[in-house]
Amino acid sequence: MDKVLEITLLYDFYGDLLTEKQKNVIELYYLDDYSLNEIGDRCGITRQAVHEMIKRTEKILMQYEQKLLLVDRFLRQKKRLDAASAEFDALLEKRGLSDDKDFIRLKNTLSCILD
Amino acid sequence: MDKVLEITLLYDFYGDLLTEKQKNVIELYYLDDYSLNEIGDRCGITRQAVHEMIKRTEKILMQYEQKLLLVDRFLRQKKRLDAASAEFDALLEKRGLSDDKDFIRLKNTLSCILD
Repeated sequence: MDKVLEITLLYDFYGDLLTEKQKNVIELYYLDDYSLNEIGDRCGITRQAVHEMIKRTEKILMQYEQKLLLVDRFLRQKKRLDAASAEFDALLEKRGLSDDKDFIRLKNTLSCILD
Repeated sequence: MDKVLEITLLYDFYGDLLTEKQKNVIELYYLDDYSLNEIGDRCGITRQAVHEMIKRTEKILMQYEQKLLLVDRFLRQKKRLDAASAEFDALLEKRGLSDDKDFIRLKNTLSCILD
């Protein structure tokens, strides 16, 4: 998986277990796309200190995932949902129901289950 | 929500953040239905010490949930899935498709999305 996506997902699940400083640095780097230098300037610390804090925080997030596997569970659910959704499309087409408004509404409802 | 169900769900999501002792006491009390006295005898501690350890561990689990809200998210997903499943049943009946094997298989696949 792409590193940015991986950290974003881990942060989505476990971010609230981090300190404010750790949250801040992850958000600036991964969500707002600031550079190490820019974050250093904003926070009044060196580029190297920012780099170390990001690495340390990534490790904390990964340790939570190693214990709880909640991102892993989410990705497996997402995969099953995508597969079922494709199966649903194929079945509606096979039965000539692709334009049936009730079935389309149901399919849309199902696609939001994991939100 | 029923207390046993609540703690079981919290334990399912956050149990692996507990110590071995905390896990052990929650499993014996909530999953295996031992009494405080029986757990005390097994672990060589007083009934009162078991009671305090259970209360303390419940509080830890609840604090994780207050921060991460992952059980809350799961319960909302489950509610949406149950509603969509009922809508699916009603629609199949309305369309005379209740015995359609392909649709029944799809509905079963969807019902396992959150597993």
